[in-house]
Amino acid sequence: MCEANAYLLKGGKEELILEAVDILEHDEDGKIRLANIFGDQKVLDAKLKSMSLVNHKIILE
Amino acid sequence: MCEANAYLLKGGKEELILEAVDILEHDEDGKIRLANIFGDQKVLDAKLKSMSLVNHKIILE
Repeated sequence: MCEANAYLLKGGKEELILEAVDILEHDEDGKIRLANIFGDQKVLDAKLKSMSLVNHKIILE
Repeated sequence: MCEANAYLLKGGKEELILEAVDILEHDEDGKIRLANIFGDQKVLDAKLKSMSLVNHKIILE
C-alpha cells in the first residue's frame, strides 16, 4: 500500500485532511484536489509544501 | 517500495527526471526539490502538476 496521508499545516499543527491519498492535482485556479483509494475526494484552497513517500506523508499549507 | 518516478512535462511529452523519489519540497522561491532513496537530489524551476501514488508517478511542469 503506497498511499499517503495528507495533512494541512495550520498554526504550526498538522491537521489530517485525507487518509490513503492516491491522486493529488493542482488545479489551474490554485486549488488542490485530493482523491484517495476509497473514492473520497477533497478540494482545498492550499498548496503542497512537502511530502515524503517513504513516510507516507503529504503536507499542505 | 513506495517511491515514485518524477517526470517533467515538456511539449506534451513526459521526460523522466528522477527515479524512486521519496521527498518533494516546494521552496519559497518557487523551485521544487526532489530527493530519492539513493540520495540523489534535483532542484527544478517547476511546479507539481499531478501525481498518482498508486501508479508511482509524479508529473511536474
